[in-house]
Amino acid sequence: MQNEIITLLKEKNLTEARKRLVQLNEADIAELFDELSNEEIICLFRLLSKSTGAEVFAYLEPDVQQKVIEAMTDKELKEVLDDLHMDDAADLLEEMPANIVKRVLQACAPQMRGTLNTLLNYPEDSAGSIMTTEYVDLKRDMTVQQAFDHIRKTGVDKETIYTCYVIDSSRVLEGVVTVRELLLAAPDALVGNLMNTHDIVANTHETRSEVAMKLSKYDLLSIPVVDTENRLVGIVTFDDAMDVIEEETTEDIEIMAGMTPSDKPYMKTSVYQIWLKRIPWLLLLMVSATFTGMIISSFEDALKVHVVLTSFIPMLMDTGGNSGSQSSVTIIRGLSLGEIEFRDIFRVIWKEIRISVLCGLALAVVGFLKILLIDRLLLGNMDISLQVTAVVSITLLATVVIAKIIGCTLPLVASKIGFDPAVMASPFITTIVDAVALLIYFAAAKIILGI
Amino acid sequence: MQNEIITLLKEKNLTEARKRLVQLNEADIAELFDELSNEEIICLFRLLSKSTGAEVFAYLEPDVQQKVIEAMTDKELKEVLDDLHMDDAADLLEEMPANIVKRVLQACAPQMRGTLNTLLNYPEDSAGSIMTTEYVDLKRDMTVQQAFDHIRKTGVDKETIYTCYVIDSSRVLEGVVTVRELLLAAPDALVGNLMNTHDIVANTHETRSEVAMKLSKYDLLSIPVVDTENRLVGIVTFDDAMDVIEEETTEDIEIMAGMTPSDKPYMKTSVYQIWLKRIPWLLLLMVSATFTGMIISSFEDALKVHVVLTSFIPMLMDTGGNSGSQSSVTIIRGLSLGEIEFRDIFRVIWKEIRISVLCGLALAVVGFLKILLIDRLLLGNMDISLQVTAVVSITLLATVVIAKIIGCTLPLVASKIGFDPAVMASPFITTIVDAVALLIYFAAAKIILGI
Repeated sequence: MQNEIITLLKEKNLTEARKRLVQLNEADIAELFDELSNEEIICLFRLLSKSTGAEVFAYLEPDVQQKVIEAMTDKELKEVLDDLHMDDAADLLEEMPANIVKRVLQACAPQMRGTLNTLLNYPEDSAGSIMTTEYVDLKRDMTVQQAFDHIRKTGVDKETIYTCYVIDSSRVLEGVVTVRELLLAAPDALVGNLMNTHDIVANTHETRSEVAMKLSKYDLLSIPVVDTENRLVGIVTFDDAMDVIEEETTEDIEIMAGMTPSDKPYMKTSVYQIWLKRIPWLLLLMVSATFTGMIISSFEDALKVHVVLTSFIPMLMDTGGNSGSQSSVTIIRGLSLGEIEFRDIFRVIWKEIRISVLCGLALAVVGFLKILLIDRLLLGNMDISLQVTAVVSITLLATVVIAKIIGCTLPLVASKIGFDPAVMASPFITTIVDAVALLIYFAAAKIILGI
Repeated sequence: MQNEIITLLKEKNLTEARKRLVQLNEADIAELFDELSNEEIICLFRLLSKSTGAEVFAYLEPDVQQKVIEAMTDKELKEVLDDLHMDDAADLLEEMPANIVKRVLQACAPQMRGTLNTLLNYPEDSAGSIMTTEYVDLKRDMTVQQAFDHIRKTGVDKETIYTCYVIDSSRVLEGVVTVRELLLAAPDALVGNLMNTHDIVANTHETRSEVAMKLSKYDLLSIPVVDTENRLVGIVTFDDAMDVIEEETTEDIEIMAGMTPSDKPYMKTSVYQIWLKRIPWLLLLMVSATFTGMIISSFEDALKVHVVLTSFIPMLMDTGGNSGSQSSVTIIRGLSLGEIEFRDIFRVIWKEIRISVLCGLALAVVGFLKILLIDRLLLGNMDISLQVTAVVSITLLATVVIAKIIGCTLPLVASKIGFDPAVMASPFITTIVDAVALLIYFAAAKIILGI
C-alpha cells in the first residue's frame, strides 16, 4: 500500500493517491515522507485533510517538518498549529532554526504562544519538557452528569480524556478520577466522593526518565505534573513516556558501546556527524592503552626468553574484558530499571566475588586442559611447558575475579557521585582490566618461571 | 512510608499497618513483600482488602506469589483468582510448579479454566501469550446509548474499556471505536457509523515484541489480536507492551554483553544461576581465542627480533574491538527499533566504510604522533623506530575499516537468516577482529620491517 502511494505520487496521479491515503494510519503516512523529494513532500501534505494533516505532522522527523513549514502559507501553518497538541508544538520549536521558530510563534494564537513559552522554559530533560497542558480538569463538587457535560464540551482538543484531574480554585491538585469510574457511577454521584486522593504525581523538576519510569511502574495512562505548591501544571501521557524510555535506553546502549549518544536515527545522520560521535572515544581509549604498552615494554627481556607467553596475551585480555563487561552491563541495566541501588553495593560485590570465583575456576581448569591438549599436543607447540600453562591458568582465575569486582563496583560508584553509570561500561573497564591482567600475568610468570 | 509499614509489621502492630496500607499504591505494596519473611508475607497479604489483594498479587514476583498461594486456603485462592485478569492468571501459571498449577486450575471457575488453557497454548513469545480476553465488544447496530449501557454492565472486569471492539455474530472484527468518540457523539448515533474500520490489528502468530512495537509506533492504548479468519480472540494493552519492550531490551543488552538472558532481576537470582548464564560464553570466547594464539605463535621468531611489536598488540586489538562494537551495537539497536532493515545493507556498509576511513585516518595520525612523541621521546623507548610506528599506524587504519565493516554486516546478515542479531555484538566481533588485527599487523611488519 505504501509503495503504491509513492508510485502514484511520482506519477502525479493525485486522485488515486488521495483515495488510498484515507485507508492509512497517520504514523504510516508519516513514513511515506522519508522516500519523497522536497516537491513531492509538499504535494503529499496538501493531499491530507486538515485534521489528518496535523496528526501526520506530529509524527514527521524534524527535517521533514522544516521542509513542510517552509512551503506552507501562513494560513496553512495556522491551521496545522491549531490542531497540534501543546507538547508536539513545543518539541517542534526545540528542533527548528530561529527563523522558523519566529514564524511559528507569530502564526499561533496568543494563548498558545504563552503556553509554549512556559513549556520551552523547562530544562531539556525535565518532566516539564515532555508534558502537555491539554488535560481535562474537574471540580470536586461536580456531579458525574456535570463532569460528562464538561468532558464533552472541552474534550475534543485534549490529549487524553480518560483520566481527569480534580483541582480547586487555585489549581491545586485534589484528586484523580477516571472516565471508567465516572461511567460506572450514578449520574448524581459527586466527583469529590469518587476521586482517588492518593494517586501518583510527578514534579516539574523530576527528570523525564524518572517520570516515564513512574508511569511504567504504576501502569498509568497519564500522570499529573505539579509544581512545588502542588498546583497542576500539566500531564505526561503513556505514549510520550514510551518514547522517553526508548530514547533513554538507546542512549544507555550507545554510551556503553563507547559512543556519544545521538538523538537522530542512524540512517538520517550524516557520516561526519556519526564520526564526531565515535572518534573521541576511540582516541581516548587508544591513548589510554599506553599503560598496557608500558607494562609489556618493561617485561621485554622476559618476553624475549619466553616468547610463548605472548601468544596468550590476547586470550587473557579478552577473557578479562568479557568477564568485566558481563558484570558492569548487568549492574548498569539494573540501575536504570531501578532494580539495583547504591545501598546494595556490598551485597552486589559479595555476589560478584562468588560468581567470579566460580567462573574463574571453570575457566582456569578448562583453560589448563585446553592449552595442554590442544595447543601443546594437538598443535604441537612444545614451548608450552607445564609451568607456562600454570601461569596462564592462575592469571585467568585472578583476572576474572578482579575484572568482575571492578565491573560491578565502578557503575555503582558512578551512580552515587552523579556520573552516568553507562560510561563505566565495557570500553573503560576493558582498558583497566587489560592492564590488571598483564600485571597479574607477569607477576605469576616471575614467581613460577623466575623471569 | 514503606519502611514504616515494614517496622509495624515486624512489631505485629497490624491495626496501624492496615491504616497506612490504604494510602499506598498497589505497585508499592507489592514491593514491601521483598523485605519480609515467609510468615510476614502471609500476614501482610491477609491485611489487604479482597480487591486490593488481587491487584497487588498481579504485581508480585513469582517466588512471592508461590509462597502466598501455598499459605492460602482454597477459598482465599478462589477469591484472588476471581479478581485476577486473564493475562495475569496465565502469566502466573507459566511460572508456577506443577502442583500449584493444578491447585490453581481446580480453584478457578470452569469458564476461566477454559480460557486459561487456550492462552497457555500459544507459543511463549507470541502475541497470544501476552493478550487478555477481557475486552468490551460492541455490535455495529447498537446506538451510543446502548453501547454505554453495555459498557456499564460488562465493563467492571475488563482490562480496558476505553477502546471497544465491534464484532459480528461470528466474532469477526469489524471495527474499533473509542469511548472518547462515543462520548462526543449523539446518544442515538450508530456504533457502525462511528467506528474506525482501518485500524491496526495484530495476529496471534506475531511475536510479542512485534505487537509491542506496533502499539508503541501507533501510540495505541490497546491493540486487537485476531486469528487467521480475522476473528477477535483478545487484546494487548499498553502496560503489557511496555513490559515486553523493557524485557526484550534487557535481553538484547545481556546478549550483547555475552550472557544468556535471564528473566529474573539480578538481586533475586542465585549465584549459581548467574554463573550458568555467564560461563558458557566466557568458555566459548576463551576457546575461540585459540586462533589469535596460533597467529602469534606462527610469528614467534619475528617477535623475538622485534619484541617491541608485542607492546602494541593490546592497543591494536582493543581499538579494533571498540570500533567494531560501535558499529555492531548501532546496527543491532536500529534493527530492534525497526529503523534499519536488511534491505538497507548496502547503504549501511557504504556509510560505515566512509565513517571507518575517517576514524581510521584520525586514529592512524594521532597514533603515529603519540607513539613517536610519548612512547619514544617522552618514555624513551628507543626500540620504536619510524618503521615500527608506520606498521602500527597502517594496522590501525586497516583494522578499523575492516572491524566496522564486519561490525555492521554480521548483525544484518544474522537478522536475515533468522538469528538474533544481538548475538553478533561485541564479544563475537571482538574475537574475529582480534584475529584480523593480528594478521594485518604481521603482514604490515613483513612488508615494512622485512621480518
